[in-house]
Amino acid sequence: MKQITETLDSFLQLDRKLKYYEEAIGLMYWDLRTGAPKQGVDIRSEVIGELSAEQFKLATSAQLGEWLTTLEEQQIFAQLDEVSQTLVTETRKAYDRNILIPAPLYKEYVVLASQSEAKWEEAKENNDFASFEPYLQKIIDYKNQFIDIWGVTTSRYDTLLDEYEPGMTVTELDRIFGQLRGQLVDLLARIQASPHQPDRTFLQQSFPIAAQKQLSLQILEQMGFNFQAGRLDESVHPFAIGLNPGDVRITTRYLEDDVTSALFGTIHEGGHALYEQNIAQRLAHTTLCTGTSMGIHESQSRFWENVIGRSRPFWNKNYSKLQSYFPNLQSISVDQFYRANNIVEPSLIRIEADELTYNLHIIIRYELEKMIFNEGLQAKDLPAAWNEKYEQYLGIKPQTDSDGVLQDVHWSGGDFGYFPSYSLGNMYAAQFAHTMEQHIPAFWSLVADGNLLPMKDWLTERIYQYGKLKTPEQLIVDVTGKSLDPTHLVTYLTNKYSDIYQL
Amino acid sequence: MKQITETLDSFLQLDRKLKYYEEAIGLMYWDLRTGAPKQGVDIRSEVIGELSAEQFKLATSAQLGEWLTTLEEQQIFAQLDEVSQTLVTETRKAYDRNILIPAPLYKEYVVLASQSEAKWEEAKENNDFASFEPYLQKIIDYKNQFIDIWGVTTSRYDTLLDEYEPGMTVTELDRIFGQLRGQLVDLLARIQASPHQPDRTFLQQSFPIAAQKQLSLQILEQMGFNFQAGRLDESVHPFAIGLNPGDVRITTRYLEDDVTSALFGTIHEGGHALYEQNIAQRLAHTTLCTGTSMGIHESQSRFWENVIGRSRPFWNKNYSKLQSYFPNLQSISVDQFYRANNIVEPSLIRIEADELTYNLHIIIRYELEKMIFNEGLQAKDLPAAWNEKYEQYLGIKPQTDSDGVLQDVHWSGGDFGYFPSYSLGNMYAAQFAHTMEQHIPAFWSLVADGNLLPMKDWLTERIYQYGKLKTPEQLIVDVTGKSLDPTHLVTYLTNKYSDIYQL
Repeated sequence: MKQITETLDSFLQLDRKLKYYEEAIGLMYWDLRTGAPKQGVDIRSEVIGELSAEQFKLATSAQLGEWLTTLEEQQIFAQLDEVSQTLVTETRKAYDRNILIPAPLYKEYVVLASQSEAKWEEAKENNDFASFEPYLQKIIDYKNQFIDIWGVTTSRYDTLLDEYEPGMTVTELDRIFGQLRGQLVDLLARIQASPHQPDRTFLQQSFPIAAQKQLSLQILEQMGFNFQAGRLDESVHPFAIGLNPGDVRITTRYLEDDVTSALFGTIHEGGHALYEQNIAQRLAHTTLCTGTSMGIHESQSRFWENVIGRSRPFWNKNYSKLQSYFPNLQSISVDQFYRANNIVEPSLIRIEADELTYNLHIIIRYELEKMIFNEGLQAKDLPAAWNEKYEQYLGIKPQTDSDGVLQDVHWSGGDFGYFPSYSLGNMYAAQFAHTMEQHIPAFWSLVADGNLLPMKDWLTERIYQYGKLKTPEQLIVDVTGKSLDPTHLVTYLTNKYSDIYQL
Repeated sequence: MKQITETLDSFLQLDRKLKYYEEAIGLMYWDLRTGAPKQGVDIRSEVIGELSAEQFKLATSAQLGEWLTTLEEQQIFAQLDEVSQTLVTETRKAYDRNILIPAPLYKEYVVLASQSEAKWEEAKENNDFASFEPYLQKIIDYKNQFIDIWGVTTSRYDTLLDEYEPGMTVTELDRIFGQLRGQLVDLLARIQASPHQPDRTFLQQSFPIAAQKQLSLQILEQMGFNFQAGRLDESVHPFAIGLNPGDVRITTRYLEDDVTSALFGTIHEGGHALYEQNIAQRLAHTTLCTGTSMGIHESQSRFWENVIGRSRPFWNKNYSKLQSYFPNLQSISVDQFYRANNIVEPSLIRIEADELTYNLHIIIRYELEKMIFNEGLQAKDLPAAWNEKYEQYLGIKPQTDSDGVLQDVHWSGGDFGYFPSYSLGNMYAAQFAHTMEQHIPAFWSLVADGNLLPMKDWLTERIYQYGKLKTPEQLIVDVTGKSLDPTHLVTYLTNKYSDIYQL
């Protein structure tokens, strides 16, 4: 028994070490994206590569394999507490995956991914896909190498999907997205045919950035974002990163001529942050201290941004505050403002899309990723393929690559298979909200009072505190009583737009 | 021969790894001091501890000892290039020192030092020495343990001094500081007896912080600070950190009612930054990529802050710019402003002291540090001892610990033995300036033209590029033709104040 205790202690100590390396690396990424001097990027990328290689070496050591084998023995495993059991299971999964990648190969890849992100930022700024293309192609080549190493079951792309949404497959997504796409396209057609189109011309004004920052901070405070355990910064592409539950950082991007971009972007990242800030302390020093999947994580940003942030009660409460920051909206009613923020309209930029067409942006990326990995599409052919899909699905075509294939950071960092999480997030969010409305009958009057904390507490109790302790499937079943069901999203959108567009 | 090449490669690779860990840890320190959320500090400290322990393990491995022994063999050493030779010599010195400290002990110490710095910041803010005292005492206890382990030659404090200024001893410092103190006290008496006391009342006005920031950035640009390879932030205690030559960060502290604090603070840290930004690329990936000693580093901040920044020609150039930012100085002449910034007067805060009494602030700290380590003075007795020394040497007594023993960050992080470097820096700076004036006859007319780049280039060629490749002694001899001679500082100060005070 003493030996088993020692093995468990060693295992937990290694896990903590892995978590700490992740925090150090996370801070370096945050720094690279929020203001690190350009001339330091190359060496910083090497530093990240060095630490990632060390982390990878620890995560793939023969010693760890032996500890896992010991702890997995049925009689021993049964005696472990819940956290240790989940750690063993999750670590085994990652171990079997990582053990196959040679450490030097992984290090090369990490260095490349870090440089590639910096190149992408420049390329986007200069609308210069050509300068980024060789980096992107290399990233794709590495990913293909990894797929070959990990092995393929049904389709090559499945191997990537599983990293972000465990258990998800092309077959399943084709079915879900097929159903969703059909219903959304119908709804879109009815919306476009409505004579009651909201006006948003009054939003094309100047909104001083200093006031936008103040407003962002106030809304975050209302959501229950803990500023002693987090901060808000600026970056080209907004993101959230939980370094530890006491240090969760989000970024936003302020546009002088668009008050809604930073506003909803901040609420979105704030939703991610609430998840990370409220993971239970008992998980804080473990690799379970993070969201359980990208889809569940995204359900939280979506819930706060869309279900709450784009609701009528939310603006009934907050609109006068907004007007006090921006007196140029004095003559606009809260109803006009609410409707303007819920216009459904095909557009070019994913992160600025409405709740309905957003899912079409995702389906485009999903299909392109399938083409890259299942059909061998090359980086050089991506701009044309991208533009073609946009014309086909949304009826519009980007005039520049910056507004097209270069708009998102994900591919530059090798995050292929990530995009579907966004639509999964929309679907999870609608399903959670449906249950929450039943549990908290005063839901909407609380929102109208600006009292969002009961919702944050409800989510903390049922979702946030568990971190990676429950799988996405366990969570959705435990919280809502059933598996993911996309009809909740369709119902939610139909109700919302039936009101706004008087369908 | 092949085996020797392999040994050298392994050694250089390890050195690079150590450098990279230093960069990651450096960024975490920078972050803790410039805006990390408070609730993340404890875990962040553990992360720093983990990485420092790993770094320490690498730096003390038996393997490294074997490589060093091989590379030190006379015939092999002779074939190494200059960089490798110096790396072997410097690494051997650190190795013999570090090998004696058990890794867990070192890790405990690093975690404590990081927490202690956060506690100090709070304690200073709340004037609450009692809350900081147990941390400080523990830091002192660890340092004493280290001294015991390293061993004592003449005095316990010598063992700490050597870390910051290699080869420096209490005997030598007692002699230098004794001589300096005598001459400075004489000069101070003559200055205080002068009827020509400058006025500074006009500096007690409000100076908007936004304008101070702009001015700081402009002055840094004039100095040749490379903003593509560095940034300026804010922190309670200003500092400079060179993560790599392409990422050198400085901080300053803006006070609404004191325009000179941030101004000269920025120039000071900018001087440190110029050193770090201009180290030769061939050293960038090695542990030689840093200043050769704290004293030499400080000579650069002092040179730029005092010799250049507090000179009459510098203000002849820049005063109208300052006036354009602060119209409330319109009626003040450049001569009045120059004299106001060179007032000699005993005061409480080291970083705001004039060039003369500054050295007395250092001598006080030097004597207290000797008392702690050579005579066993306890942390709890420091506030009283501090206040007594200030009364004795400067004739004034702090009313709060925040203005007294809590004012500096150094002790909270365990940097005992560091303070003497500041006065050594003053002395080195005066000696370098003396030589520079001979090499660049147009020196002062260039300053008056705002053309500071020839001085930056002169320093880069003779000092900056070498990083840690030359010892302080080699540098001062190579650049000025002789060893450190404190009379240059006394001459410089005598000339300057003879003019200002018409002695």
